Amino acid sequence: MVQSSPCCQGLLDPTQKINIEDAPRRRRFRRCKSAPLAEYPTAEIEGNHSLARSGSIFGKLHPSFRKVAIFLAVYLGIGTVCFYLVRYQIMGKKTNGFLDAVYFCIVTMTTVGYGDLVPNSVPAKLLACAFVFTGMALVGLILSEAADFLVEKQEILLVKALHVHQKVGPTEILDDIETNKVRYKCIVSLTLLLLLIIVGTIFLATVEKLGIVDAFYCVCSTITTLGYGDKSFSTKGGRIFAIFWILSSTICLARFYLYAAELNTESKQRALVKRVLSQRMTNVDLEAADLDDDGVVGAAEFVIYKLKQMGKISQEDMTLIMEEFEDLDVDQSGTLSASDIVLAQSSQTARGITKLRISESTESTFTMINRI
Amino acid sequence: MVQSSPCCQGLLDPTQKINIEDAPRRRRFRRCKSAPLAEYPTAEIEGNHSLARSGSIFGKLHPSFRKVAIFLAVYLGIGTVCFYLVRYQIMGKKTNGFLDAVYFCIVTMTTVGYGDLVPNSVPAKLLACAFVFTGMALVGLILSEAADFLVEKQEILLVKALHVHQKVGPTEILDDIETNKVRYKCIVSLTLLLLLIIVGTIFLATVEKLGIVDAFYCVCSTITTLGYGDKSFSTKGGRIFAIFWILSSTICLARFYLYAAELNTESKQRALVKRVLSQRMTNVDLEAADLDDDGVVGAAEFVIYKLKQMGKISQEDMTLIMEEFEDLDVDQSGTLSASDIVLAQSSQTARGITKLRISESTESTFTMINRI
Repeated sequence: MVQSSPCCQGLLDPTQKINIEDAPRRRRFRRCKSAPLAEYPTAEIEGNHSLARSGSIFGKLHPSFRKVAIFLAVYLGIGTVCFYLVRYQIMGKKTNGFLDAVYFCIVTMTTVGYGDLVPNSVPAKLLACAFVFTGMALVGLILSEAADFLVEKQEILLVKALHVHQKVGPTEILDDIETNKVRYKCIVSLTLLLLLIIVGTIFLATVEKLGIVDAFYCVCSTITTLGYGDKSFSTKGGRIFAIFWILSSTICLARFYLYAAELNTESKQRALVKRVLSQRMTNVDLEAADLDDDGVVGAAEFVIYKLKQMGKISQEDMTLIMEEFEDLDVDQSGTLSASDIVLAQSSQTARGITKLRISESTESTFTMINRI
Repeated sequence: MVQSSPCCQGLLDPTQKINIEDAPRRRRFRRCKSAPLAEYPTAEIEGNHSLARSGSIFGKLHPSFRKVAIFLAVYLGIGTVCFYLVRYQIMGKKTNGFLDAVYFCIVTMTTVGYGDLVPNSVPAKLLACAFVFTGMALVGLILSEAADFLVEKQEILLVKALHVHQKVGPTEILDDIETNKVRYKCIVSLTLLLLLIIVGTIFLATVEKLGIVDAFYCVCSTITTLGYGDKSFSTKGGRIFAIFWILSSTICLARFYLYAAELNTESKQRALVKRVLSQRMTNVDLEAADLDDDGVVGAAEFVIYKLKQMGKISQEDMTLIMEEFEDLDVDQSGTLSASDIVLAQSSQTARGITKLRISESTESTFTMINRI
């Protein structure tokens, strides 16, 4: 993810003009810059887990996976109890009271709705309505949080399998995953989906004694949540299998559609980035990009201008940050320097804010204050 | 959307130090800067329709809406013909051959799958499988492209209605919509949804002669695409109504869930922005934000640093743009100026590229070349 950017070398070019009055401060900055520039975002990501959008694979997704699992357990728990209590108001092919309640719950929450079990009284009907709305929201949550986590776990296995003939290390595998993230996710979910389709078809053909076409038709009707209901799981063993299989296969198919859409968006985005980058800079662009109006466009100004053209950031995003910058730039120099920080701190102290947050830099700031 | 940013005034502060050698060039830049800085993104968005993420409400969404409408027409056309041809292999409550084919198509593509009509032969079953997979993809497309457009059209009506007692102009309404975009979309889709639920319930109660609870139960079972199938549209009139009502209500509910999720994400994102902005800048931050390593942090560098902390941009985004900057910075000064553009152009001419793109700035560039 983090590549050493060749631009840094250029910007650190010793031939570049150094303002005399900035020179000593600059040396001090250089000295304590132990990590190369391109690497600090990694530290930032590791430091602020919650802030990072794309953090480490396992560290970040675990809590949301746990949250989803708890929600699912609570939903199924309450659903099973409720539908078990109204089991005599549910009509259709029955096997075991408890099992049917769980099965009905799953068939309802995934919106498969075969109709092999249907509520037959006013309270049971309203209960089913309540459970389908909450179930849909829960499936959405599973789709957006947990499914991603499960696919990511398979990704490494897939890429390892693809690279089995070329001897590549774990670093190369991780790099490869990072570059082709969405494509691998597509492949993984499609593989899982085909596996689930095959398993489902074989199961329905052997346990539920359906013909191969009927079994496949029932599988398709289920994973798409169509659920015509002319073929469904009617045996005890079938329903136990269905509880796990329906939930995983419907989510897997939905996830596959989502990844395919993402792949499409990504390739469009890449084309846009390429087009924006290859656009010739004109004097009009130069002027528009010149944020601090000093007649030249610095690296950072150029980055912002191009990001705006790519649609990655909006004027709104910038306005808020620029306001904050204005506030921080106590000496109104148009730039932030160590002296602004000292000035900001002393004005805060003057305003009676004494509980200074202990940050990594507190010590060095104090050293500087003492020096002044 | 575009507010005049107070920061610009600060950055245009006449007290700020001007480098003597930059002064003449700078005056020239000032002279031709007819529009205020904060407004250029509007011009940019209008100029590059395809580039803008959030362009004008109508200009941008029309083409995708047309695309979706064509896809839907083609899908329903082919579906109707196919299912009409296999109509004797479809079992269940029938009304009119043509009508049933369209109805079956809609019930299948939205994955409602009542089961009141089911395929009864191998070809019909496989046809249904093919149509449900493509139908799901199409519904996804409608959800992501056309639904947004329809809700946006209602938005203005809603906000006008909300402001009916306060006399506000169209500008204020558009501003209000822009600020609370997602919230209004949520309200609009919820209102539409409630309307569709009421209309559906009344229709089922009167035309299909269902009791009120049964009618409501059938409505819930339909809009969530559950479709148990114990209650469904069985009359001719009912099925004509169902064709339009099922498609719009299932999409409206899905859209509502999507907006609710977006609202949640947005409020999280706002909290993150607030936290990042209120974080005290330390010397460590200052150093990390100092992209061009000149010891001070300019406005643009500060914006980039904060955007990174917010997770809006990644190092990868930046690396590509910084490489492009390196290439453009022909004189290796660490900044782009008009002279870099001239140098880049002359080197391109030297390489034999003579077909210069005609851009807005070509004329002024030539004037400058002549001057040199």
